[in-house]
Amino acid sequence: MITFIDYAGTMVFAISGIFAGVERKFDLFGVIILGFVTAVGGGTLRDILIGSTPVAWMENEVYTFIILSAIPIAYFGKNILQKAKKGIFLFDTIGIGLFTILGVQKTLAFGLSPIIAVMMGVVSAVFGGVIRDVLSNKEPLIFSKEIYASACFAGAILFLISDYFFSQNIAMALSILSVIFVRILAIKKNWSLPFNP
Amino acid sequence: MITFIDYAGTMVFAISGIFAGVERKFDLFGVIILGFVTAVGGGTLRDILIGSTPVAWMENEVYTFIILSAIPIAYFGKNILQKAKKGIFLFDTIGIGLFTILGVQKTLAFGLSPIIAVMMGVVSAVFGGVIRDVLSNKEPLIFSKEIYASACFAGAILFLISDYFFSQNIAMALSILSVIFVRILAIKKNWSLPFNP
Amino acid sequence: MITFIDYAGTMVFAISGIFAGVERKFDLFGVIILGFVTAVGGGTLRDILIGSTPVAWMENEVYTFIILSAIPIAYFGKNILQKAKKGIFLFDTIGIGLFTILGVQKTLAFGLSPIIAVMMGVVSAVFGGVIRDVLSNKEPLIFSKEIYASACFAGAILFLISDYFFSQNIAMALSILSVIFVRILAIKKNWSLPFNP
Repeated sequence: MITFIDYAGTMVFAISGIFAGVERKFDLFGVIILGFVTAVGGGTLRDILIGSTPVAWMENEVYTFIILSAIPIAYFGKNILQKAKKGIFLFDTIGIGLFTILGVQKTLAFGLSPIIAVMMGVVSAVFGGVIRDVLSNKEPLIFSKEIYASACFAGAILFLISDYFFSQNIAMALSILSVIFVRILAIKKNWSLPFNP
Repeated sequence: MITFIDYAGTMVFAISGIFAGVERKFDLFGVIILGFVTAVGGGTLRDILIGSTPVAWMENEVYTFIILSAIPIAYFGKNILQKAKKGIFLFDTIGIGLFTILGVQKTLAFGLSPIIAVMMGVVSAVFGGVIRDVLSNKEPLIFSKEIYASACFAGAILFLISDYFFSQNIAMALSILSVIFVRILAIKKNWSLPFNP
Repeated sequence: MITFIDYAGTMVFAISGIFAGVERKFDLFGVIILGFVTAVGGGTLRDILIGSTPVAWMENEVYTFIILSAIPIAYFGKNILQKAKKGIFLFDTIGIGLFTILGVQKTLAFGLSPIIAVMMGVVSAVFGGVIRDVLSNKEPLIFSKEIYASACFAGAILFLISDYFFSQNIAMALSILSVIFVRILAIKKNWSLPFNP
């Protein structure tokens, strides 16, 4: 189940990176790179910061195959993917929740503190998109518009707390649900977190 | 004393990153990220390059608390901070000098050569600002206008030399003073280092 | 011979980074940084990802001296360099081929799979230019226009195959020749790899 969400999330992230590359009129090489950095960039940054190298996706080729197979899927399935936006959004959000929690767990396993683990959870989930935007020469979207960093943050905190009281599976389910809940609520209610001193 | 300068420098760097985020109209999340990368980005890059992971600020939560507490300070103290520009400039410059020297020392402690240590000293002091600018989708300021990379360079060299002749404390004081001196002189005299072949 | 190509390639890459900095009107510090990241950025990223730190160029000061000596060469030799474009292009292409293969070899030596090794070979050869463009606040050229990533890819694959059948020297020669061949052909024939789903 976790493995399935992990792979599905990687696929959805890769497809979002590929379409970002298409929008910038990148050629095949640029598109592949954007697919990769979007899908594995956040976890890669986390691994480099905590000192877990070679970075995770290099030691399990499944990620490479998933990302490479996202290329023909994006190419031939463009129309279907555009119609399936709700389904993709769901996988994307579940994926974000899972990436957050896996990031928290891995950071704790490296002996770092819960505060750092929460930060690395958020980094795992959102920095793929940040690197995608930097490589596209755009201001990172998540710094000004999307609320999902806050959803990841809420999920990471809830995971730490619920992991203390419940079994790990329940804690994961609860916190992924909270990520989905906060994100959908944030979009519906048009939440934002302006900072104007 | 060193600890105090280190923490004060981190605070000043974080505040400068926060205001850069405010200027770009980032939301709270973006502002926090810019505060972090400006404060610890240079040391993080140095640690990654020399292979000192988990990176330093993750193993001592004080840095995280300082940077997070810079958020309310920037929010509520904006007017005071704008009036205290001279004081902030002084802490900023002392901080830059200290970060340079700590970077030199750490690189030498990893068995790397003095030349590399000088480079890593400069990286520690200035790359936080470079990453801040890259994430803000701006050309790094320090590549074209500010002279303080040269001040760091002068301070790093002087530290290596004076560390050989004097005690470490004297060497640190001398080289931090030289950073302050070169930077102020550069600003007063409007020094620049154009390169037009 | 390998050492000579490696050093010549580093010099050519550094000079290209220096001129990119001149074009952006960077000052001496910015120009030096662009020279460094262009020359050693790709290998540095590869080393960080596979966990080979301190990164390679820090452990052998020759690279630092080559890149620093590229500064006066670019400054005083600008006119000669512009006339010698064909020769520079040749060294650049041979350098790219060699960097690709050295990247493949090093990645394999770290116990990673051939697929990852091919990717890291390409990263070694082209990401110096990507980081140069990101630091110059430009869209990475190689994502949309230049074909040489494909040449590196072809060379990396050919190296893996020919290394299996022939001696290493022959395999290296064959694959560097293939990089040169594919790149020149791509330029002559105006090849491109558009991706428009």
